Amino acid sequence: MEIKVVRKILAENDAQAAANRRRLTRARVAAVNLMGSPGCGKTSLLEALRAAAPRLRLGVMEGDIATTADAERMAACGIPVVQINTDRFGSACHLAANMVSAALDALPLEDLDILVIENIGNLICPGEFDLGEHRRVVVASVAEGPEKPLKYPLMFRRADLVLVNKVDLGRQAGDAAQLCRNVRKVNTDGAVIRTSARTGLGLRAWARWLRRLHAELFGKL
Amino acid sequence: MEIKVVRKILAENDAQAAANRRRLTRARVAAVNLMGSPGCGKTSLLEALRAAAPRLRLGVMEGDIATTADAERMAACGIPVVQINTDRFGSACHLAANMVSAALDALPLEDLDILVIENIGNLICPGEFDLGEHRRVVVASVAEGPEKPLKYPLMFRRADLVLVNKVDLGRQAGDAAQLCRNVRKVNTDGAVIRTSARTGLGLRAWARWLRRLHAELFGKL
Repeated sequence: MEIKVVRKILAENDAQAAANRRRLTRARVAAVNLMGSPGCGKTSLLEALRAAAPRLRLGVMEGDIATTADAERMAACGIPVVQINTDRFGSACHLAANMVSAALDALPLEDLDILVIENIGNLICPGEFDLGEHRRVVVASVAEGPEKPLKYPLMFRRADLVLVNKVDLGRQAGDAAQLCRNVRKVNTDGAVIRTSARTGLGLRAWARWLRRLHAELFGKL
Repeated sequence: MEIKVVRKILAENDAQAAANRRRLTRARVAAVNLMGSPGCGKTSLLEALRAAAPRLRLGVMEGDIATTADAERMAACGIPVVQINTDRFGSACHLAANMVSAALDALPLEDLDILVIENIGNLICPGEFDLGEHRRVVVASVAEGPEKPLKYPLMFRRADLVLVNKVDLGRQAGDAAQLCRNVRKVNTDGAVIRTSARTGLGLRAWARWLRRLHAELFGKL
């Protein structure tokens, strides 16, 4: 009985995710699902991306259990943004496709090339829910330690791109090279970029990756 | 229908947790549920606790989705340890009372004063499941940023002790004072200790807190 209920929820989520993806594709918006631990630097990387690629027409959907802190940071950068707070959905530990569907109505899709859906800070549960994105991006801070890809394999295995972040903190905070090697152990063909929102390292490479994604899906920008 | 199933799961968990707590209390073992984000430093703090308080009779239950890396680190310190891997439980994103019950059989309870149950690295889901512990301890790394208590309020609100960790990384990594103030905003009466596994800061204070807990429950050690 319990298994049937869970299967039904996942099947409904997949159907809604497919509808979201069709809507985004029709609007020629390339969507990425941005995931990672609490405090790995997802929001700071979006602020830095804005600075590094000001002409990229970026929109953001912010997922948090509570507060609109991240949406306010995006709005302060002039990025079209909508906040989803899951405390209205039983404090859900991940976004789901129905939440994204409702939030899409609040964004000017015709003015966007790229939509970043910043998921709840959680290295486990968001990995199991398709939101209708075109690609999955995982952020891992070097300060989390290098072994995380081995301990949370699902999230890293399914990533199309891993951003190894906060490399400016240096070796005292964590071993970036070992972290990259461990990403490779569970994910043989995803891209890996080392980033720092503080120094700007890797931000242009990330912007290029996003532009290439848009070109792949819809032709050159 | 779905709500009924979830309620039944939670009720069964609570019954098993109460049984675990009775068993631990009978054995005069004070148990804490140690929670926090991936890479916040839970395991390193246990290694450092061993070094700072060698006479504390400590046992550890390690929760991870995959790998026995953390259990190996505990065993290398001479700490009695048992590993729970949730990849056998559908890669569960949190420990549950039934997993703890089975793992208790593998520990020499009669030789322990303190049992630390190191939960899966996750700032959300573990907060909802009673394991049968006596107290809840949350670790937050300064590198995660100071706003985490506001964005993940349940975890911090219910904590009996918050360890503000990795303070040796300094202001470049994050604002420890602001993090402490934000803990206070959601939790008015829990203890807060600043720690660094690297420098040993706060480790004796944490050991004192654990000894006092044991004394509260079972009389002075």
